[in-house]
Amino acid sequence: MQFTAAHIALLINGKIEGDASVTVSSFGKIEEAQQGELAFLANPKYEEHLYSTNASVILINDDLELRQNIKATLIRVPDAYSAFATLLTKYQEIATQQLTGIQQPCYIASTAKLGENIFIAAFSYIGENVVIGNNVKLFAGVFLGDNVILGDNIILHPGVKIYHDCIIGNNVIIHAGTVIGSDGFGFAPLADGSFKKIPQIGNVIIEDFVEIGANTTIDRATMGSTIIKAGAKLDNLIQIAHNVEIGNNTVIAAQAGVSGSTKLGSNVMLGGQAGIVGHIFIADGSKINAQSGVTKSIKANNTTVTGTPAYDYTAALRSQATVRKLPELEKKILELEKLVQLLLAERIVDEG
Amino acid sequence: MQFTAAHIALLINGKIEGDASVTVSSFGKIEEAQQGELAFLANPKYEEHLYSTNASVILINDDLELRQNIKATLIRVPDAYSAFATLLTKYQEIATQQLTGIQQPCYIASTAKLGENIFIAAFSYIGENVVIGNNVKLFAGVFLGDNVILGDNIILHPGVKIYHDCIIGNNVIIHAGTVIGSDGFGFAPLADGSFKKIPQIGNVIIEDFVEIGANTTIDRATMGSTIIKAGAKLDNLIQIAHNVEIGNNTVIAAQAGVSGSTKLGSNVMLGGQAGIVGHIFIADGSKINAQSGVTKSIKANNTTVTGTPAYDYTAALRSQATVRKLPELEKKILELEKLVQLLLAERIVDEG
Amino acid sequence: MQFTAAHIALLINGKIEGDASVTVSSFGKIEEAQQGELAFLANPKYEEHLYSTNASVILINDDLELRQNIKATLIRVPDAYSAFATLLTKYQEIATQQLTGIQQPCYIASTAKLGENIFIAAFSYIGENVVIGNNVKLFAGVFLGDNVILGDNIILHPGVKIYHDCIIGNNVIIHAGTVIGSDGFGFAPLADGSFKKIPQIGNVIIEDFVEIGANTTIDRATMGSTIIKAGAKLDNLIQIAHNVEIGNNTVIAAQAGVSGSTKLGSNVMLGGQAGIVGHIFIADGSKINAQSGVTKSIKANNTTVTGTPAYDYTAALRSQATVRKLPELEKKILELEKLVQLLLAERIVDEG
Repeated sequence: MQFTAAHIALLINGKIEGDASVTVSSFGKIEEAQQGELAFLANPKYEEHLYSTNASVILINDDLELRQNIKATLIRVPDAYSAFATLLTKYQEIATQQLTGIQQPCYIASTAKLGENIFIAAFSYIGENVVIGNNVKLFAGVFLGDNVILGDNIILHPGVKIYHDCIIGNNVIIHAGTVIGSDGFGFAPLADGSFKKIPQIGNVIIEDFVEIGANTTIDRATMGSTIIKAGAKLDNLIQIAHNVEIGNNTVIAAQAGVSGSTKLGSNVMLGGQAGIVGHIFIADGSKINAQSGVTKSIKANNTTVTGTPAYDYTAALRSQATVRKLPELEKKILELEKLVQLLLAERIVDEG
Repeated sequence: MQFTAAHIALLINGKIEGDASVTVSSFGKIEEAQQGELAFLANPKYEEHLYSTNASVILINDDLELRQNIKATLIRVPDAYSAFATLLTKYQEIATQQLTGIQQPCYIASTAKLGENIFIAAFSYIGENVVIGNNVKLFAGVFLGDNVILGDNIILHPGVKIYHDCIIGNNVIIHAGTVIGSDGFGFAPLADGSFKKIPQIGNVIIEDFVEIGANTTIDRATMGSTIIKAGAKLDNLIQIAHNVEIGNNTVIAAQAGVSGSTKLGSNVMLGGQAGIVGHIFIADGSKINAQSGVTKSIKANNTTVTGTPAYDYTAALRSQATVRKLPELEKKILELEKLVQLLLAERIVDEG
Repeated sequence: MQFTAAHIALLINGKIEGDASVTVSSFGKIEEAQQGELAFLANPKYEEHLYSTNASVILINDDLELRQNIKATLIRVPDAYSAFATLLTKYQEIATQQLTGIQQPCYIASTAKLGENIFIAAFSYIGENVVIGNNVKLFAGVFLGDNVILGDNIILHPGVKIYHDCIIGNNVIIHAGTVIGSDGFGFAPLADGSFKKIPQIGNVIIEDFVEIGANTTIDRATMGSTIIKAGAKLDNLIQIAHNVEIGNNTVIAAQAGVSGSTKLGSNVMLGGQAGIVGHIFIADGSKINAQSGVTKSIKANNTTVTGTPAYDYTAALRSQATVRKLPELEKKILELEKLVQLLLAERIVDEG
């Protein structure tokens, strides 16, 4: 896609300095950008690049005073970084909108219902009674099991697999290789030491505006639903067990795991590689540091915890600092012991 | 699928109260169930729902005394929960049995041998000399490399990938995106700091009645076999390295990892996000807590360990509790030091 | 493939004892090998198997003196293990070379450019403007997004997904299910507690001779590139966040994670399940133990760290040892306290 400087200025409500008819077709960092690319300068530290860059169009802050002539077309805005981010978002929206049609071969059950303006890439698999909303984009090799319901404006990247009966809300993005609705890990121990599978007949519900990273796994509920509430953001390689609920706008970093039936409140932040045991509750606004292991419910909102087992962040930091001094403290204790023994021995001699 | 109350009562050996000809086609929780659904009441705490539910058929315990009239058909059994689980299992077995045939397009090498009553979904790939047993169900996008051997009654969910020469026993379930038989992580360091790949020419053997979760990885042996023994249950996102052996009925929770050549005995329980170093042995019935890091063999059966490095559970809990008191203990030591110095100084004065 | 003993001796520069025309077609352990298989004896501990094995050809060390007659053909070399590894590598190279052609169905955009002697398995997806070098082998269900560039001699195992604009160097191996170029985890918090996606418009660059395991995820940069430098080796289920750089010949074990914008130097070793926070630097030759959590830059080359938060290995081991003695140390402190109180009380009496 090509855009003129004039068109871009219109999109971000900026003022043009220079040739408004020059065109760009991609983005670049100011220090590396080539002809035909759009760059931005937000941090005055990098101003020198403004005079040497090959970028064709540059977004700059309203208040920047130029010290040399510039061959590129400038677009002045109140906040160049924010305007750049807005442009990128619009660009990606337009690019995604342009993806339409159904590539062959793909497998679409005759009972599936497809919305308008959708894209289904080759090797996608749409099961019986699936319902797909409008503006949905399925990349190659997506799997939708029987009875899956997709809302509007969804992007499923290559190889996303959604098992039967799961429900995905509007404006959801799921990255490649992620699995939604695999069986929860439920087995009943038998007398001989072996295990009997407990059927997992619930589903997964992903609400609106959720984004999920690559190769993450979210298990279906034993009965009822595993729920990821609106606005939650999950990174890559995360494990969400059966019957878990993740609250609104909760953010989970890569490789974290949440065990069965645990409920996270709203606006929780769960750090990378952290783990939470099953059947507990984490209050709204809690922050759980990376690699922590949470073993008990967090009942007070906005609590920060760390460590395994996780407890109050400030106390934990203090304990960690003392742990490093431990060998030294141990030496002190042994010396004190000797001195006290000496004092006691003398006392006995005195009294003797 | 539709079943009459009479048919269901027969399956679970129950006694009908009400209309035996009423039909159900799905399952629900008693508090949410709709007409045409089957629910159960096991916990007397929820008895009130019995009188308000819209479920068409309800399983209840033999000894439950009704306090009001009920419009649903009741089926009395000794244990309503257990009978419900049995029904679910039978239902899923029937549903799976009904999946048959080969969807197009799929890729099946001419040298592959296929059993009876199998289902191969679109986009599945069957390599040279593959052998597939009876009642095997392959969902969309399954990959079977050359010479893979599958037993009977296997379910491979979408996108399972099994590399060449691996062997899968009977009654095995593997969830979406899991990779069996990728190369073990073996590299020989060279003098210049770079690494030379050590060819990984072994395979993976999965024995009968194993279930493996989603996006798990099990590497092939360098030579010989990585082995998952009968009845073992593995959750999602687990790493099993080359030449590992997992014992019978051993259970591994999500995101745990086992390093190369380590052997786990039977009935071991490995907690979520736990890790085990390479080349050690874990005795039968050991329990390794979540997030633990095991660095030494566990030689005594039924040992429980926790922490990194992992050691005896009770001792570790006691140490963890003391760690929290550390800043306070440090203060005490410094006070004691002052007091002892004082006593020593007075002694010197006394003696002086 | 079949090889005569004569052919094998030629490949590894060995001396034949016995029938040079005998043929083998696969490899085996000396204690299990069957007729038609090649085995080796490197460790004299296993010499007994030499006289009982059914292997048809056996590699042995030059200096081994036989104590009995042997029916197999022997090939003498200076180092039997190393010669065996060389043979395996050559065998796999030949087997890979023989994979050629394009299986149907696959999806190849008309603007893609394909090199010579390549293999594209069924269900692979090649996007617009993709460039593929010579001797590239794509297994089933590989996805290459628009503008992806692949060098020469690359093996992508089943279901590898490479998003648009990523660049892969020569002699790279990537295992099944791995995702390259998914969006970095970048969200700007808004006043109402929700999050706005920050577009991720960079890419991933994988340099020459990199090997990556199964189900690993490497996110694209926000702008610029996430870079895996030449010779790095990554295991399974690893998370590499946006804008990370991994240095030459750095080795990362399974389930480890590196957060955004962190740079690892050359020849770093990152243990399994270890994690590194964002925006820090790890010096060349650093060793980070399994399950460690690194929270600060490591500035001195060849530093070894352990624990969470990670610090100097030897000091950490000493502290860990003391932690185990903590309950005992606490008891000592309380006893000392009592004794000192006693001494102080007596002093007061004395002075009273």
